[in-house]
Amino acid sequence: MSILAVGTVAFDSIDTPFGSAERVLGGSASYLTLAARPFCEDVRLVGVVGHDFPDEYRQVLANGGVDLEGLEVDEDGKTFFWHGQYHYDMNERDTLDTQLNVLASFEPDLPASYLDSDIVCLGNLEPGIQRDVLDQVHDPDFVVADTMNYWIENTPDSLRTTLSRVDCFVINDAEARELADEPNLVRAAGQIRGMGPETLIIKKGEHGALLFTDESVFSAPAYPLEDIQDPTGAGDAFAGGLAGHLYRTGTVDEDALRRAVIYGSVMASYVVQRYGPDRLLDLDPTAIAERARSFRELAAIPKLVPLDKQLV
Amino acid sequence: MSILAVGTVAFDSIDTPFGSAERVLGGSASYLTLAARPFCEDVRLVGVVGHDFPDEYRQVLANGGVDLEGLEVDEDGKTFFWHGQYHYDMNERDTLDTQLNVLASFEPDLPASYLDSDIVCLGNLEPGIQRDVLDQVHDPDFVVADTMNYWIENTPDSLRTTLSRVDCFVINDAEARELADEPNLVRAAGQIRGMGPETLIIKKGEHGALLFTDESVFSAPAYPLEDIQDPTGAGDAFAGGLAGHLYRTGTVDEDALRRAVIYGSVMASYVVQRYGPDRLLDLDPTAIAERARSFRELAAIPKLVPLDKQLV
Repeated sequence: MSILAVGTVAFDSIDTPFGSAERVLGGSASYLTLAARPFCEDVRLVGVVGHDFPDEYRQVLANGGVDLEGLEVDEDGKTFFWHGQYHYDMNERDTLDTQLNVLASFEPDLPASYLDSDIVCLGNLEPGIQRDVLDQVHDPDFVVADTMNYWIENTPDSLRTTLSRVDCFVINDAEARELADEPNLVRAAGQIRGMGPETLIIKKGEHGALLFTDESVFSAPAYPLEDIQDPTGAGDAFAGGLAGHLYRTGTVDEDALRRAVIYGSVMASYVVQRYGPDRLLDLDPTAIAERARSFRELAAIPKLVPLDKQLV
Repeated sequence: MSILAVGTVAFDSIDTPFGSAERVLGGSASYLTLAARPFCEDVRLVGVVGHDFPDEYRQVLANGGVDLEGLEVDEDGKTFFWHGQYHYDMNERDTLDTQLNVLASFEPDLPASYLDSDIVCLGNLEPGIQRDVLDQVHDPDFVVADTMNYWIENTPDSLRTTLSRVDCFVINDAEARELADEPNLVRAAGQIRGMGPETLIIKKGEHGALLFTDESVFSAPAYPLEDIQDPTGAGDAFAGGLAGHLYRTGTVDEDALRRAVIYGSVMASYVVQRYGPDRLLDLDPTAIAERARSFRELAAIPKLVPLDKQLV
């Protein structure tokens, strides 16, 4: 049993009003795999880096236990680079620079050992590349996908084609409103599920996440953090933890999905406490379990006294 | 046992991208009392209206069972008027017009029958007027207060003085950040609780509410509504339902506060489904109980399998 994640592997430069970090290891595939790894022994990465990608960063992923056979090195170019600046309240950010570099000509060619992957995570990438990966894997059990506003605006038809093959779609609230062209999140969710994904998760950053299935809506809280150092990668760590937990339980019923949203939230809540994905590397199972329990306490509504008769 | 609520009684004109309503009954005291009333037989209103306040609106409050002995009629002026315009996503609004009218010279003089009130709700008003009411009530059991950015910016010292006498303070997230001059909500909450209120509730509109006490943080979801007609008064209906439930249970322990946040959310979720406070008038106890149960289902995190050992 295994999880395959495709996405970017990047250098991220991050500015916040409280500090900054230059060219740290980043990218959706890095966060996805490192967050899934504590739940699953066999986590496979598909991505591309350039000639400038240091051994040190490759070792971070390798030491995290990620299978790097699918990490292509394109000696003709440089690694994808992103530079972002967070606002004072850390919930908003501006992209200062994006250099696609080797990503511009990336055509994933999966190693033979990856073709039997059970859960496939399609990290934020051009929707056509996401399908290229899906086309190669033999009949995956469950497909999780992310995207971003750039693809919603520039390749809407291709995104729809990918969506029709996705089981669980994970996007943020602004993207959901934009994709459905509908300001009401509940109605937007209905429309997006009509595009294919039976399960939809809308991430709301510091406000938690919403899970929409055939059966119900689930509202998950965000962990109340006093110190957020770097929100980068939180969404990918969420998807990684989510996929990891689903892998672990081997089911995708309502309860499993709700729990998976919590474990995704746990991984996201840890990753933002440091620059880059470092915090994911020294998380032990106890820390993960403890924070998951904290989420239950945070959201616990005590049993309601039957009110029907007692109300005046 | 009784609840007293002081606040505005107003004409509201409301524009949304989907419709509008002119000079409907509004004001914090109207929403507070009508939302508390299903939980408590004795709900008392303190406020002022002008010579133009129609019998028809007085009858709405009276038919809702609200004690209007404390509703002063100032024959020399007109009723407070507010005109707001909601944005396309209904989470933001602009104030187009505010006419204080009789509110500008309002000096509450409580009827003798109000002086024994048990729970006091200080709706959004000049903090000095809020204290005038507190000064008159004999030793209330529990004081709930709301405010708005105008008082945070223009009468910060007076607001602090009022806060030092408040048990439970209810504000929205933008106001909490502004009052504490701190972008992180958890840290902002700590600072605001340091100003006096042992219990702090931060309302986040479509993202639910956070309850901060000595013991814990509680994250309550918002009810996922497909159709929101008019968000006006949701915050006041929340405070009214909250106070009403606390009155009913007669305790303010952790569980009672969490439940009260849910009943506040229930009343807020109903009130936004129509223009003005109308929906509060035809809510039966069954409808309230049913939606409260829906909140529990919405937020339910299934029991977590002990993970410590099973994790790889």
